[in-house]
Formats: sequence, C-alpha cells, structure tokens
Amino acid sequence: MYRIGQGIDFHQMVEGREFWLGGVLIPHTKGALGHSDADVLLHAICDAMLGALSLGDIGKHFPDTDQSFKNIDSKILLERCFTLIAERGYCVVNVDSTILLQAPKIMKYADDMRETIAKILHITTDDISIKATTTEQMSFIGREEGIVATANLLLRKVG
Amino acid sequence: MYRIGQGIDFHQMVEGREFWLGGVLIPHTKGALGHSDADVLLHAICDAMLGALSLGDIGKHFPDTDQSFKNIDSKILLERCFTLIAERGYCVVNVDSTILLQAPKIMKYADDMRETIAKILHITTDDISIKATTTEQMSFIGREEGIVATANLLLRKVG
Amino acid sequence: MYRIGQGIDFHQMVEGREFWLGGVLIPHTKGALGHSDADVLLHAICDAMLGALSLGDIGKHFPDTDQSFKNIDSKILLERCFTLIAERGYCVVNVDSTILLQAPKIMKYADDMRETIAKILHITTDDISIKATTTEQMSFIGREEGIVATANLLLRKVG
Repeated sequence: MYRIGQGIDFHQMVEGREFWLGGVLIPHTKGALGHSDADVLLHAICDAMLGALSLGDIGKHFPDTDQSFKNIDSKILLERCFTLIAERGYCVVNVDSTILLQAPKIMKYADDMRETIAKILHITTDDISIKATTTEQMSFIGREEGIVATANLLLRKVG
Repeated sequence: MYRIGQGIDFHQMVEGREFWLGGVLIPHTKGALGHSDADVLLHAICDAMLGALSLGDIGKHFPDTDQSFKNIDSKILLERCFTLIAERGYCVVNVDSTILLQAPKIMKYADDMRETIAKILHITTDDISIKATTTEQMSFIGREEGIVATANLLLRKVG
Repeated sequence: MYRIGQGIDFHQMVEGREFWLGGVLIPHTKGALGHSDADVLLHAICDAMLGALSLGDIGKHFPDTDQSFKNIDSKILLERCFTLIAERGYCVVNVDSTILLQAPKIMKYADDMRETIAKILHITTDDISIKATTTEQMSFIGREEGIVATANLLLRKVG
C-alpha cells in the first residue's frame, strides 16, 4: 500500500542565470546551470516520485538532449510526474527534503515553495517539508560552486 | 498513518573540540566544530523528525544565533523534537542512519549511542540503527576535515 | 508493520579493475576499488536491508579484514542479507536507488541490474528502481575518481 521514493540532484551555480528553487525565483547573484530551469529541489522530488514506482529517472522522462525541455519550467515536469503516479492509482503521503547550499539564506522562501509544490501534488503544505543546511564551507557546496537537493517521500495506493 | 523523514548534517572536524556523536563522547584527536556540541548524528535525527511532520528544520527551532543553544547538549534538542512529535500524536517506528567519516572507528560505540537515542525517543534499541562508512579517502570526509551523518525514519500516528 | 532502511556506499574508480554495478559487469576503462567486487549499488542495498532491522552494517557482517570476502561477488552478500530479513519475517516492499557517477552512461544496463536484484530479493522488477545522475563535473565524482550509490527501501512484516 505504501511505497518509498528518494531523489538527489546536483547543479553548478554560475553567474548570469536565474535562481529557481522549489518553483520560486530567488534573488541571488548566481543561478543553477542546466538545460531546464535547473530547479534542483523540484528535480529531486520528480526523481523520488518516479523512483517510488520504478518508472525510471528524470533523465529518461525529460532528456536534456530534447529541445522541448530547453529552459522549461520544472513545475511542468513535476506536474507530469504527478500525472504518472495518479494514473497508477497513487497519491503522495508526504515529502521531506533538504537543500544543501552555502548561500543565500533561502528558508524565508520555503513557505512559498511548499505552497507551489503542494498545489501541483494535490496535497496540503503540511505534507511538504523543505529544510536547508550549509556544508560548513566544505566541498563544492561550501565554495558556492554548486547546490544539491535531496528528497524522500512516501506514496500510498488510493482506494 | 505513516510519515517519512530525512535529515543530513555536516560539521568540520577540528582540534581542540570534544567529539560528541550519537550522544556519546568519543575519544579522538579532533571534535566537530559548531555552536552546540555539534553532534551530527543527533542533528540529522532531529531534522528527520521535524521534517516528517513539516515542522521546519533544526536551524529554525534551535538557531545558532541564540546564545541559549551555545555548547548545548544535543540530547536536549532531540528531547524537544520528541516532544514536538508526541504532542501531535506520533511515535517513531524506526530510525536508520549512517555516519560518514574516515576516522576514528566508531562502531564500538554504536550500542551506547543506540541506547542513548532509544531512551530519548521512547523506543527500543531494536528500532535504532547506526551504520558507518568511510568515503575511501575521498573528499573533505576522506581528508578528515569533516563529518556527515544522514538519517531516515518512519513515524506512525498513534491510536 | 513497515520499516525504513537507507544505505550509502563510496568506492574509488581506478584502472585495472572490473566494473561491477548492480550485479552486472559494465564495460568501462575503470572499475571500483575494494576488497570484494566493490559493487556500490549492491552494497548500498545490503546496508539498507540491514539498517531497516537494526542488524548493524555491511562492515560488521562482511568485514574487509576477512579473506573469505576477498573479491567476493556482492550478489552473495545480498543473498545473505535477504536471508537475514526473511528469517525475521520481513519482505522487501520496494527499493529506490540512485547511482552518482560522471561516466560511463549506465542506464542501458539498469533493467539487467533490476532483474538480477529482484530475483535475489524475491520481488518483481517493478519493485526495484535504479536511477542515475552525474554531479555536473563537481567533486571526486565529477572528476571520475569515485562513485557513490544511495538506496532507500521499505520492509513489511509478512503475515
């Protein structure tokens, strides 16, 4: 009745890119580099949804060699993942996630992200958790060269 | 009825600090640097408990700008997290965790840690798993500059 | 009735070694370095199974100081972990995993890996998910010096 999913996503942080995170545009001097809008949090959640039902990964469903996904809003990818699990009779019980980045402070945007994601997944914001941590200046994350997001979730068979 | 939570925590390892891990003092030439006692394992479990019920993260509940948390015993933070989930009618089903560090060997302390944590979470040691791995000399962990802990858990609604 | 498990494993990638991943031999110029066949994915799943029932970790059950595990096929280790959980009355609900590596492309081998693992765990391939991601050239993974696998799973008490 229950299924578990996990996702992790990495992107470089570079100047000259918008910084999309959890479906929200964050004011910052850098943004995540990628074929789509490079939203690490939404990508990690997409992968966790696909993984819970063994449907492959985000690279299979939305290949970065496909021009139709160029600069695409990752909220559209999340909607497609929701459709894939809903068609198979599953709903999301809850999502817990962590964003690993050194800067900027992003928790003041967390409630906006939760509302955005909850609406797409047809659940309440109480079922979406977004946490953040630095890596204490260590690694490519600590040097502000990159950002990582991890997500875990439970799905439940409906009816 | 079930909810999933995940946590991950990073700390630098430096000389001149006590090394607290899983609520236990480990003899070592270095300790984890932080505002509190910098116990990465307890912090990861705290974050997983908070995340499972979408209550924010450890930085929200126990900010490192608050002097009352200076050098605090992280067991107190874990107790507060337990109270937060118990008040909402949840209990911990089981916790699985991994400590990533190059040295020292810490598995001989694992049973002490499990007893300490189990008592605080009102479960048996059979419901607390602590694993450890090196990163095979790679990264800041392999260079013994830092330590990371990850935890995943299930909560269950009581009654 | 349900239990959660998590595993993570790291290995260096070096020339002159066979590259075993998910129980499958992958053609590549490098392979993972280790005492056994160094199959990061199977090791992560083993650790997740052991962790879900608080049975210790792979280093406890299959120590790399034991010559009987020298170059051992990790499928044998996975079988032993399956026996350990089956003896305790548990089955695997589903496994979700991610392989972090820069090269080579491995998703074309994913179905072979899923079949191999599903057979050992007595479940269908629909209950085994294997995902892959690069780290976008960052870290020891991006420099092709190492590989990491993470796995999460649910166990369920049978009967």
